[in-house]
Amino acid sequence: MLTVDKYLELINNAITSIEYPQTPLGLYEPVKYQLDMGGKRVRPLLTVMACDMFGGDINEAISPALGLEIFHNFTLLHDDVMDKADIRRGRPTVHKAWNENTAILSGDAMQIVATQKVCEAPLRVLKEVLNLYNKTALEICEGQQYDMDFEAREDVTREEYIEMIRLKTAVLLGCALKMGAIIAGAASLQADAIYKFGENIGLAFQLQDDYLDVYGDAETFGKKIGGDILNNKKTYMLISALSMATGETKERLEKLLAGKADDEKIAQVTRIYSELGVDKIAREKIAEYSQKALGYLDEIPNNGELKKFANSLTERKL
Amino acid sequence: MLTVDKYLELINNAITSIEYPQTPLGLYEPVKYQLDMGGKRVRPLLTVMACDMFGGDINEAISPALGLEIFHNFTLLHDDVMDKADIRRGRPTVHKAWNENTAILSGDAMQIVATQKVCEAPLRVLKEVLNLYNKTALEICEGQQYDMDFEAREDVTREEYIEMIRLKTAVLLGCALKMGAIIAGAASLQADAIYKFGENIGLAFQLQDDYLDVYGDAETFGKKIGGDILNNKKTYMLISALSMATGETKERLEKLLAGKADDEKIAQVTRIYSELGVDKIAREKIAEYSQKALGYLDEIPNNGELKKFANSLTERKL
Repeated sequence: MLTVDKYLELINNAITSIEYPQTPLGLYEPVKYQLDMGGKRVRPLLTVMACDMFGGDINEAISPALGLEIFHNFTLLHDDVMDKADIRRGRPTVHKAWNENTAILSGDAMQIVATQKVCEAPLRVLKEVLNLYNKTALEICEGQQYDMDFEAREDVTREEYIEMIRLKTAVLLGCALKMGAIIAGAASLQADAIYKFGENIGLAFQLQDDYLDVYGDAETFGKKIGGDILNNKKTYMLISALSMATGETKERLEKLLAGKADDEKIAQVTRIYSELGVDKIAREKIAEYSQKALGYLDEIPNNGELKKFANSLTERKL
Repeated sequence: MLTVDKYLELINNAITSIEYPQTPLGLYEPVKYQLDMGGKRVRPLLTVMACDMFGGDINEAISPALGLEIFHNFTLLHDDVMDKADIRRGRPTVHKAWNENTAILSGDAMQIVATQKVCEAPLRVLKEVLNLYNKTALEICEGQQYDMDFEAREDVTREEYIEMIRLKTAVLLGCALKMGAIIAGAASLQADAIYKFGENIGLAFQLQDDYLDVYGDAETFGKKIGGDILNNKKTYMLISALSMATGETKERLEKLLAGKADDEKIAQVTRIYSELGVDKIAREKIAEYSQKALGYLDEIPNNGELKKFANSLTERKL
């Protein structure tokens, strides 16, 4: 077993070594731009790490791992078009740096490049790897569709929200781990267990992201606190508050949502969350999914490094 | 060997039998809508026919054949967004019937569904089928990129135009035929030959489409004559005329391109094409690619039905 830093070094070297066709420049330049934006490379890391945990040859896992990272970045590229987001990781998004048509078409090409990389999985597991990949890719589209549907709805339940983030975010973490396990030839019960670990840790991580937007520390969280509140973003926090608030509290909350997006709004909405105990509910939910995730690791060999990494993900300032 | 009608019956039944997930409706309804728009189903027809020609089991070819038809329809869906086209086959395009975000996301899902179908190819040829499919899919994106690039350029050469339509249209016909051949276990020289047949017949067909827009008969062509001229569309005809016209003729042509889009424009531009002999050059080019295509069929068994079908494609009123 290597360390997280060592896996990341392998992955980043492999990303740097990807060769794109020279022409047409307008197609491949945005693909490279999007992939070079950086990010934590969590998904390929999980694939390579899982392969190593089950005693596989990590060289066999690198290309499929890159495929997942490229697929993830393709979804970000198209999501940014759909959300009309101008900035990602401090740089203009592809549809701002070029234009919308370029973003659509380069995204399409990126999805194909991702599939090509996944297809480099060893032949003995190719079919199984592809079934997992295609299923997960489609689920991610479903998650994005639910996310857009929810924007227009006022009655989203917490269960629906959890299912949405499961599809949009968590299944790809499960897929990344299971793909590494499959390539290593893990028994299918163990491959399924590590998938469930990834799925649950993904849910915990996403809920924590919602929580930290309200109760986090700007420095360790890495972005401005209260951004979701300013944008009326339907996070686990807001959905919980909307479903729990009654009477005068409900009126106050609705007035704040319809009102000016300023620091006072952040302070007032946060106060309502605390009055309702949304903070406590969220912390319990995060702990629940984290615990559930760790339970799936019990039967998995060499799980030390993965446990450590999972803790680093979910133990940002709570 | 079956007849074209019989192959089409098999394909259309298979398309009707595709089961989509029930939810989210906003994701899968547009996919079904796009695929049910109809069309000639040329690509899956070629796959199944080629499989049969080489003595393969056509049941093994049906799913991959559908994959290509779904992929083709995905490209039409996204192209319509990029071209801001409102109508396709007499019905509102997806981004008009729903909205642009739905068109982007449903297209993404459609690309995954296409790959899923291709992945149902027999395991013994899965890797080879996927390599061909991914390569072709990426080439189609390249073709669309060149097409968009050319819109903004005044100096596109005929060679560049041919390369663009080769990528955007012709390679998928070659891919469809070769995929059927691979599934049937054809020798690789023969699989390559049938690919070249498809590629060249695709070029002939696309050039003929450009020609018929000017010199065709509205009834047999199926659309209004002169549509490309009205829109200054950079077809083989216009690119040839622009590269050949000099002096007063060139001035007249450029004035017409900058002028009003009416029947007089169609008449005048057509006259210039005829003066320059663009009609003759186009007819010769179409014949050249058709002949080249047929040459590749010489060594291919059971080629009668395919020859007949190819003739029906390229023998519309010339």
